[in-house]
Amino acid sequence: MTSESQSVGIVETKFFHINEKIELESGCMFGPVQVAYETYGRLNEKKDNAILLLHALTGDAHAAGFHSKNDKKPGWWDDMVGPNKAFDTNKYFIISSNMLGGCSGTTGPCSINPETNKPYGLTFPVITISDTVKVQRKLVEHLGVKKLIVAGGSMGGMQALEWAIEQPDMVSACITIASTGRLTAQGIAFNAVGRNAILSDPDFNNGDYYGREKQPEKGLSIARMVGHITYLCEDAMHQKFGRRFQSKDKPNFDFNIDFEVESYLEHQGRVFVGRFDANSYLYITKAVDYFDAAGKYGSLEEAFKNTNAKFLIMSFSSDWLFPTQQSKELVKALVKTGKDVSFCEIDSPCGHDAFLLEFETQTKIIKSFLAKERRLHD
Amino acid sequence: MTSESQSVGIVETKFFHINEKIELESGCMFGPVQVAYETYGRLNEKKDNAILLLHALTGDAHAAGFHSKNDKKPGWWDDMVGPNKAFDTNKYFIISSNMLGGCSGTTGPCSINPETNKPYGLTFPVITISDTVKVQRKLVEHLGVKKLIVAGGSMGGMQALEWAIEQPDMVSACITIASTGRLTAQGIAFNAVGRNAILSDPDFNNGDYYGREKQPEKGLSIARMVGHITYLCEDAMHQKFGRRFQSKDKPNFDFNIDFEVESYLEHQGRVFVGRFDANSYLYITKAVDYFDAAGKYGSLEEAFKNTNAKFLIMSFSSDWLFPTQQSKELVKALVKTGKDVSFCEIDSPCGHDAFLLEFETQTKIIKSFLAKERRLHD
Repeated sequence: MTSESQSVGIVETKFFHINEKIELESGCMFGPVQVAYETYGRLNEKKDNAILLLHALTGDAHAAGFHSKNDKKPGWWDDMVGPNKAFDTNKYFIISSNMLGGCSGTTGPCSINPETNKPYGLTFPVITISDTVKVQRKLVEHLGVKKLIVAGGSMGGMQALEWAIEQPDMVSACITIASTGRLTAQGIAFNAVGRNAILSDPDFNNGDYYGREKQPEKGLSIARMVGHITYLCEDAMHQKFGRRFQSKDKPNFDFNIDFEVESYLEHQGRVFVGRFDANSYLYITKAVDYFDAAGKYGSLEEAFKNTNAKFLIMSFSSDWLFPTQQSKELVKALVKTGKDVSFCEIDSPCGHDAFLLEFETQTKIIKSFLAKERRLHD
Repeated sequence: MTSESQSVGIVETKFFHINEKIELESGCMFGPVQVAYETYGRLNEKKDNAILLLHALTGDAHAAGFHSKNDKKPGWWDDMVGPNKAFDTNKYFIISSNMLGGCSGTTGPCSINPETNKPYGLTFPVITISDTVKVQRKLVEHLGVKKLIVAGGSMGGMQALEWAIEQPDMVSACITIASTGRLTAQGIAFNAVGRNAILSDPDFNNGDYYGREKQPEKGLSIARMVGHITYLCEDAMHQKFGRRFQSKDKPNFDFNIDFEVESYLEHQGRVFVGRFDANSYLYITKAVDYFDAAGKYGSLEEAFKNTNAKFLIMSFSSDWLFPTQQSKELVKALVKTGKDVSFCEIDSPCGHDAFLLEFETQTKIIKSFLAKERRLHD
């Protein structure tokens, strides 16, 4: 962030409607779809200065700015998006949309099924990263965009890869941060435990809990706790909480919250159930599990063969959920295929969460990558 | 294991009763206590050839041999205990007991409280590693043992350390495998998630579920799944399951078990609820969280100052639950205090579970350590 970087100010979430049915990867025909999105900056005359930001597991369309003057918390990547920031709204037209299956304005399991006038719940079709990219493509075309840069961290990085591979005609650059071409067995295992906690919660009621007195809060909260352990690295957790007790300097000798780290997890779980839908958590983690960039191509090299994008791959030294090694596999495949790829491992103690925290280094690297891309482009 | 190593054959679990109340670390006076134990080999005349084996989180007294001719599965460390094995019953009198708070014969939350004639449930007092060592001391004294060697992996290693530190008059050697002087914040966090899953299960019924139709199986199963992710390392998991689907080569597009790794976790959870008590899981993980070898001494060096044991500390290269670094901290403190310590990091792909799997290397190292200890001793 330079000293002149500014906020995008007050922004509004808008809605785009796809009224026809789209074919999902599962074969299911699904629609209509509403897409919640925000934009920052302006599309140029050539309609080629767009950047599509892709959110992580529990993100939403609100990437930057505030929704009102009284809003205390800005969008999830506010430090990265605005005049003179990494994603510079003086130069770029930035788009951010909530993913298909989400619970923040885009059609998802909590949306009303127009055929039944009831929320979809588990009748919502299982979606994939490819499906959400298809929906995003319709949005960016609707906005008049001809070429675009895609960028995202974690699951957002998966979407960026999917864009570059499956929509090569549109993508001029792809920024993938703290991400992977596919989850390992351990990654799937962590998601499976989270889903299990939700599915086992008696208040889950087979996904039909909307409007009921009881919500599957306990299950969703446990899923979030597991997630948070994987977002921080052991060192960061130990620096942050150590073995300190919560309220006094000795153990409770009971099963209430004892250690600070327990209180942190409990807090994260509690806050999360207030803002996220348990069904969406099931659908989105499943999409993450299914994602495999190499997928139908048989290898990453084959998958990258037809891409036309320049790539920037970034990882964080202490990220053990999507460790540097997994980014390097992407880089290796891109180099083998003769693609233009820049790679950087950022030294950070923040674990996987670093992509939401380490703004200064990310800003420098992204600015330099985008400046080069722009020069080549003009 | 040498070619002449043999099984201990058919063994029997015995019971020892402490009829008075003992003071627990919490200050609570608790008793009577029944201790389930097994012994293999014979105590010598000098009563100084005993080895006390200490089990891990969900272990029991049945360390070796079979309970009957039809028994299909031997004890949990059968490959390590027997004539000519690492813990050689030709030379040693081996004792193994179920820990206080357990659910395999030693008094725990599922035992009947003689004052109410009902199972203790959550009225069972919160216990610590120190409390279980106190109980074990009464057992070994009852068996006539004057000096002993203590040995254990994971939580068993914590008990071994506690023995060496708190009962220095009895312990001549301490073997600590894949263990730690204390859990980090991450370790506590994983245990906390497991406990949360149990406490959130409506069938847990505040710990009062014995004899009821429904048991807190879902919560306990989720706790076990989380545990199993930490027992295997990422590489081992990926070697074992990769991203393979369970029953066919494509996704289900639903929330049933999809990937092999999900099936593995589900199986581990299901088997576990058949053999373990949810309340015991709460109590024992809590004891693990509380364990801090440095504890009241302020530092590991101070804690080790009065020990009289020779130490063997072993770790496994791929163990990320109790990584080698944590074993090295123990070694460093022992060296600083001028104690006799041997250390070995065993190269293994098996993660934390290696102490239950890597028998050959462990056997060589333990045999050599014990032979040296015996020579010095005689």
